[in-house]
Amino acid sequence: MSVDPDHAPIRVAGVRLGTAAAGIKHADREDLLVVEAVPGSTTAALFTRNAFCAAPVVVAREHLGLTPRWLLVNSGNANAGTGPRGIADARESCQRLANLVGGEAAQVLPFSTGVIGEYLPMEKLVAALPEALGRLDECGWEAAARAIMTTDTRPKLASRRVRFKGGEVSVVGIAKGAGMIHPDMATMLAFLATDAGVATADLQRLLAAAAERSFNSITVDGDTSTNDALVLIASGASGVRLCPDDPEFARFADAVEQVCAELAEAIVRDGEGATKLIRIEVEGARDQAEARRVGKTVAHSPLVKTAFFASDPNWGRILAAVGRAGCEGLAIDRVSIWLGEVLIVEQGRRADSYTEAAGRAAMQPSEITVRIALGRGAAAATILTCDFSYDYVRINAEYRT
Amino acid sequence: MSVDPDHAPIRVAGVRLGTAAAGIKHADREDLLVVEAVPGSTTAALFTRNAFCAAPVVVAREHLGLTPRWLLVNSGNANAGTGPRGIADARESCQRLANLVGGEAAQVLPFSTGVIGEYLPMEKLVAALPEALGRLDECGWEAAARAIMTTDTRPKLASRRVRFKGGEVSVVGIAKGAGMIHPDMATMLAFLATDAGVATADLQRLLAAAAERSFNSITVDGDTSTNDALVLIASGASGVRLCPDDPEFARFADAVEQVCAELAEAIVRDGEGATKLIRIEVEGARDQAEARRVGKTVAHSPLVKTAFFASDPNWGRILAAVGRAGCEGLAIDRVSIWLGEVLIVEQGRRADSYTEAAGRAAMQPSEITVRIALGRGAAAATILTCDFSYDYVRINAEYRT
Repeated sequence: MSVDPDHAPIRVAGVRLGTAAAGIKHADREDLLVVEAVPGSTTAALFTRNAFCAAPVVVAREHLGLTPRWLLVNSGNANAGTGPRGIADARESCQRLANLVGGEAAQVLPFSTGVIGEYLPMEKLVAALPEALGRLDECGWEAAARAIMTTDTRPKLASRRVRFKGGEVSVVGIAKGAGMIHPDMATMLAFLATDAGVATADLQRLLAAAAERSFNSITVDGDTSTNDALVLIASGASGVRLCPDDPEFARFADAVEQVCAELAEAIVRDGEGATKLIRIEVEGARDQAEARRVGKTVAHSPLVKTAFFASDPNWGRILAAVGRAGCEGLAIDRVSIWLGEVLIVEQGRRADSYTEAAGRAAMQPSEITVRIALGRGAAAATILTCDFSYDYVRINAEYRT
Repeated sequence: MSVDPDHAPIRVAGVRLGTAAAGIKHADREDLLVVEAVPGSTTAALFTRNAFCAAPVVVAREHLGLTPRWLLVNSGNANAGTGPRGIADARESCQRLANLVGGEAAQVLPFSTGVIGEYLPMEKLVAALPEALGRLDECGWEAAARAIMTTDTRPKLASRRVRFKGGEVSVVGIAKGAGMIHPDMATMLAFLATDAGVATADLQRLLAAAAERSFNSITVDGDTSTNDALVLIASGASGVRLCPDDPEFARFADAVEQVCAELAEAIVRDGEGATKLIRIEVEGARDQAEARRVGKTVAHSPLVKTAFFASDPNWGRILAAVGRAGCEGLAIDRVSIWLGEVLIVEQGRRADSYTEAAGRAAMQPSEITVRIALGRGAAAATILTCDFSYDYVRINAEYRT
């Protein structure tokens, strides 16, 4: 968990969080979260591209176009694969919250994460709403990070403070992990907030850019869940208003991207069975899309991932993955690959200077950078992934049994 | 191994095979194969699409345009990632064989399979050529199937005989397996021959179509090797000439496809760590490409594959994989999924008739068919894969250690 650099309490002015134990899946843990933003807040969000998206995603997408003020999140049940009744339940949960706070159902964005294919236990959820509302607090981020966990082994929280001419701004975020490796525990969820004031359209563009270089640049096993969502609320309560024309805006965008990147990395580190964090840096690509495609092809290869688990400097597997990444006219004899500082492939074949001992040494650390130079352009991208261990198979084979 | 339905010896008139033990990787096994076809034979071939292709693939592609009469195959060393010297070695091995048989180097197609990144032991290979030539025999198919094995646990051989007005025709093939799961043992290789007479262009088209529904419809882990190759020789020695205008041609094409399909299935069954054969039948797609894409997305999902290993009827994982397969405008509420005979998903959600007990029972067999109806068109495709077990991780993590 990230510690705020100034050791100030982690909070975002104008945003309060409250949790409760609704007993949705387990009796003994908090599994419900309500986030409330002050009137005038703006909200941006990105959702899963999976055509099989969960009921709350359908409803949250509808409500996003209005002016959301509340997020309603539960863990333990994904409300996915639940058909029309699931949609009705998601709407009803928004309405129940709205009734309690004197707002409109359309001002609530619902989110669920947990088991697929079971109906939401509406009575339990609704019964716990008053408790969550009674505990709304600007300092509720840590409890919130715990309440949204499913099989995560650690809560994930990150924050940044940035000083501008007009004052100081906070950016705080929480995430629950490894959505891609848990489509039936459904989901990567991430909720960020800032007390800067930012227009909705600007906020949406900024969030999309930050996601591309953080959450969209990680992969555990290539599976995209049905409930993935990323939300950023800007309360404006700091009094600092920012717009893209402002020379200071880039620093704000940086802070948002840093929070996203820290959360994304925490998700990979907490990947099922992961023993190593692998950073795949691709350079010399024709364009960003190509760089990302090469990085993801290597990151998805079970052969590469098992080699990392075994600390085996198996450069042939990496090179073969590069070769099938669909780079038209790729000249393999221009490709170089480094494991950490060790040059392993040069001109598309084993580097003359390479020794198996150096390769083995480079595979030992728990964080490894693979650098792949394609030699055909100036674009670059970085993809984060983890290795593939016995425990991945065990966890995913035994999860429901 | 397939048994010829007529219990006749497995042979193709006009095609002889000879093996030898060259000691390329192991001292105690045959690892060299020469195939010789009579003059006037035609040859079709398909090669890996991996941009990182091995030296013999480069040379075989060049020579294919001429009139090949010999195949020279070694196991134990892939001659991949070996740069200009690897190309020179592949050319030299063709020349040495040509010298011995009184042909041209350009009439020899070379193929290698084995470890990546090591140079071919040319002396050993060349020294064993006379032995292989001395043993050329039309009945050499079984020995040939063994000589091309690497980590395959079983030789793979299939054959069909088809009676035409003009006489009887044989189609015989051998394969070595699981190229996709062994990029550093490099390769799926398959060599087929028939004694029908078929023009080269017709043979090439027929082979491409057969491959699409056989070798290109299997996947173990999505990795494509650097050496994959599929060859079909038509000797014409049966005296039966066939061309696409002939109403009998379709029966011949069927026989070739059946041999390819049987070999492809044998490769999946022998996949590393495989405990189950999974047949994914996709129907109701807009077009073939879409049907194949959905089938492959499901087949590649580590979550789906670990669920099969665990005999867990985890329909949410299958549905989530369908949802991310990139079918534009997919209406998930039209999707139905069956596990064997059991309807598990109906209208994009758990079928009302479904019970966990029925799902569990459907997951027990060692061969399981998953049927996925997309409800948006008339196209269909079948993809074969296997499950994902502890042994997959063990074999691939330990292979080089």
